[in-house]
Amino acid sequence: MIVVVALGGNAITPRGSRGSPGEQWEAVRLAARALADLVVEGYKLVITHGNGPQVGYLLEAFDSLPASIPRQTLDLAVAMTQGWIGFLVAHSVEEELSRRGVRRRAIVVPTRTLVSLEDPEFSNPSKYIGRYYSEEEAARLSREHGWVLKRDPRGGYRRVVPSPTPLRILEVDAIRALLDRDFIVVAAGGGGIPVAFSNGTLKPVEAVVDKDLASSILAVELNADSLVILTDVPGVALRYGKPGEVWLRRVKVGELRRYYEEGEFPPGSMGPKVLAAIHFVERTGRRAYIGLLEEAGGVVRGERGTVVEP
Amino acid sequence: MIVVVALGGNAITPRGSRGSPGEQWEAVRLAARALADLVVEGYKLVITHGNGPQVGYLLEAFDSLPASIPRQTLDLAVAMTQGWIGFLVAHSVEEELSRRGVRRRAIVVPTRTLVSLEDPEFSNPSKYIGRYYSEEEAARLSREHGWVLKRDPRGGYRRVVPSPTPLRILEVDAIRALLDRDFIVVAAGGGGIPVAFSNGTLKPVEAVVDKDLASSILAVELNADSLVILTDVPGVALRYGKPGEVWLRRVKVGELRRYYEEGEFPPGSMGPKVLAAIHFVERTGRRAYIGLLEEAGGVVRGERGTVVEP
Repeated sequence: MIVVVALGGNAITPRGSRGSPGEQWEAVRLAARALADLVVEGYKLVITHGNGPQVGYLLEAFDSLPASIPRQTLDLAVAMTQGWIGFLVAHSVEEELSRRGVRRRAIVVPTRTLVSLEDPEFSNPSKYIGRYYSEEEAARLSREHGWVLKRDPRGGYRRVVPSPTPLRILEVDAIRALLDRDFIVVAAGGGGIPVAFSNGTLKPVEAVVDKDLASSILAVELNADSLVILTDVPGVALRYGKPGEVWLRRVKVGELRRYYEEGEFPPGSMGPKVLAAIHFVERTGRRAYIGLLEEAGGVVRGERGTVVEP
Repeated sequence: MIVVVALGGNAITPRGSRGSPGEQWEAVRLAARALADLVVEGYKLVITHGNGPQVGYLLEAFDSLPASIPRQTLDLAVAMTQGWIGFLVAHSVEEELSRRGVRRRAIVVPTRTLVSLEDPEFSNPSKYIGRYYSEEEAARLSREHGWVLKRDPRGGYRRVVPSPTPLRILEVDAIRALLDRDFIVVAAGGGGIPVAFSNGTLKPVEAVVDKDLASSILAVELNADSLVILTDVPGVALRYGKPGEVWLRRVKVGELRRYYEEGEFPPGSMGPKVLAAIHFVERTGRRAYIGLLEEAGGVVRGERGTVVEP
């Protein structure tokens, strides 16, 4: 039973955390307990994760360097976070399993995600990243680096980059080979490093891929038995946080798609998770699950959270 | 034929380079041509690489952040460079092969290297990392972070960390599984993330492992057919740069060990390469090669550089 488990950003950087190494290890060790439960129950795990706060941290660090030192590009920063977070997750999962007397290796596979330069996001980028700048700084950065900067609804200017739809995960065969040999795999971190064909050659692009959508693509390509999206809310709700809020326990994929198309789920939070679940269930005829990280075991068994059914 | 190829730092950051993304890609693409030659000749490649300038860059970037933002530890910085440089190398090798009509995937495997806390380096650390500080800054950093800082022979104070002997590469079985399926593997970057047993639990440690020694351990564990160390000098010389300089074309491992023990090779440059070659040849009875990156094909065939024979 192959299960692709997508970890939300809160698994590495809980709300209120300043992102110190100690806080990261503590948060990831908590997530590792939930993940170890799944391994012990016999699932073959592929763990994916977000990287928003970590990419933001690295971009700010590059920004803080003296002007004479070159800054690194976004694709390289994503690659760095795959090494960074992948190590935290893999090491913590092994440690937790070892505490339970289970000897298994978790292997990090940094991955690239194929996107298309024809994606509308490349002509109209939508994803805010990194820190806030004044109007003058924004003008200078746009001039110096060719960045697109937009006024953030929350004030100030921020860099915006394309968030194109993921099409394929290039390392899928390697991940399958590792699963066949009983390794736990950490992959598709931060949605993967986006690459696109340009004049017949595969080139890295400065963009970000939604990690839930990338996880769904990966789950389909691996022919996984289920896709499990773990986050910090207990499942999918209609009218979330409003009067008449209704939590969905089991929902048919067609019904969920209707809610999605009616705009029930906000972009950038539950929206991509629901879309990822819909995509997986429609392509495979199998179930997807959305629920709390702390309840991972119950979520996978369909006893907790939301089950999306074919 | 499995060949472990260790790339010197110059393969990613040539002398004089400021380390911009454009310069990195250009340097790595050049290295990729040499590596692609070996793939086309039928070798199964495991590519290892250094990370000195990149770790230095990240530590300096963390240092430049406002004091309110936590800095990341050295083990996490090493993990970041494995994602970063691994991506550059894997993507460039695939690109070069694809240009020659060869479709092969190169997979990055971030690895951990087992070291022992009993290693004398933990009581007397020797490896200078990161930037130079004034005496006052050094005192403050030592107080705040518990770092050891020493006066660098080249002036100013620098952080020193242990550089313990590598004992095992934890991900070796995964690397073998990927080689079995004909993937090119990039691993042991920067010598790997050092981990050590502490009270029976494997813990990351703030240290650095020499990448040539780690490559040698990896080559022995993989039962590789040869270890190839590529660098920016054409091979091993006695009295290097001095009157009576003699280049070694073929040398028996016993003879080379004698030169090594007589102090022929400076620590931190040719020393660890020679020691890595000796270690591999003594353990396996096979050949190791040291030579110029640009002549990789000739080096592997023993037509260029130095061949270390059993």
